[in-house]
Amino acid sequence: MQYPEPIAKLIASYMKLPGIGEKTATRLAFYTLGMEENDVTDFAKALVAVKRDLHFCSVCGNITEDDPCPICRDSSRDQSQILVVERPRDIMAMERMNEYHGLYHVLNGTISPSAGTGPMDINIPSLIERLKNHPEVKEVIVATNASVDGETTAQYLARLIKPAEIKVTRLAHGLSAGADIDYTDEVTLFKAVQGRTEM
Amino acid sequence: MQYPEPIAKLIASYMKLPGIGEKTATRLAFYTLGMEENDVTDFAKALVAVKRDLHFCSVCGNITEDDPCPICRDSSRDQSQILVVERPRDIMAMERMNEYHGLYHVLNGTISPSAGTGPMDINIPSLIERLKNHPEVKEVIVATNASVDGETTAQYLARLIKPAEIKVTRLAHGLSAGADIDYTDEVTLFKAVQGRTEM
Repeated sequence: MQYPEPIAKLIASYMKLPGIGEKTATRLAFYTLGMEENDVTDFAKALVAVKRDLHFCSVCGNITEDDPCPICRDSSRDQSQILVVERPRDIMAMERMNEYHGLYHVLNGTISPSAGTGPMDINIPSLIERLKNHPEVKEVIVATNASVDGETTAQYLARLIKPAEIKVTRLAHGLSAGADIDYTDEVTLFKAVQGRTEM
Repeated sequence: MQYPEPIAKLIASYMKLPGIGEKTATRLAFYTLGMEENDVTDFAKALVAVKRDLHFCSVCGNITEDDPCPICRDSSRDQSQILVVERPRDIMAMERMNEYHGLYHVLNGTISPSAGTGPMDINIPSLIERLKNHPEVKEVIVATNASVDGETTAQYLARLIKPAEIKVTRLAHGLSAGADIDYTDEVTLFKAVQGRTEM
């Protein structure tokens, strides 16, 4: 016996989400069946809207409803700094910190030899073009993740941009806030020692 | 800085699903943004369809596109047995076993004093009515879960139905297939000893 078609289709859709296997998808589908009609309709509308109403900012690559995005349009921000991130979500994290007031550039990925992603597959050409057209940019802060691919991408960008006399910086590596030395992995500890600062 | 409205709405919708908190919902929403347009549209359609096209069978309470459901319409099934389950999903599990050929009744819940659910809040009245109108039913197999509420419901049904000279049985409790005695909880072990059978 098969599940009725409507529920089978919904299970298949849930299974397309990351980290959701058949068991969880089935549980979610049956849960959906018991949800308020309004909530389900809103969910369906939100799914369609997110694909229809959100676009990438033609300047920085962030997701936005209007192009250019609110950050690129904000002339009160420091136009001399561009902070380069992998994903739009990283911008939200930086903005929550509330200490950075420059501009952003979203690579929308990393250089990843293992996944076959090269510099031309992510928003590196648009960054270079942007730097050419905006000589007011004095510093590029590379804020890719502390992973192998993030590191590779940072190195690549530094080699590419430094010859243009633009300062290229990288986020500090070390202990996270509240970290316990005993529970910190060797790579992090090594970076924390290497990057030690005078007190 | 807030997320753009379309993504904030989708995050809110994902958060209505069980076991999905803000972090996971955010991850899923951004993942959705990168999904194929078709897959997202299908997902939205499946959500609406599951609420629109599925109904409860007026006979047994199972979910179905047609009323009565295919099992209730199937005259080749043993009309003398009704297996009582908590949820429509439990029917699928039984059917996968492929060894039961009688009918079903879905309670759509359990009696739960702690949650304030009484016998009238679940499909017990419809079961009693069904038994009255179908004297060909000789056995009611109670297949509620092996939880406190499932047990309470089973006891209640037995007391209610046995006076009508209908056999009421309960699924066996004991070791699951491949179970390791050492890792089996005490309640299960106790039930396995209690229900031991002669070899």
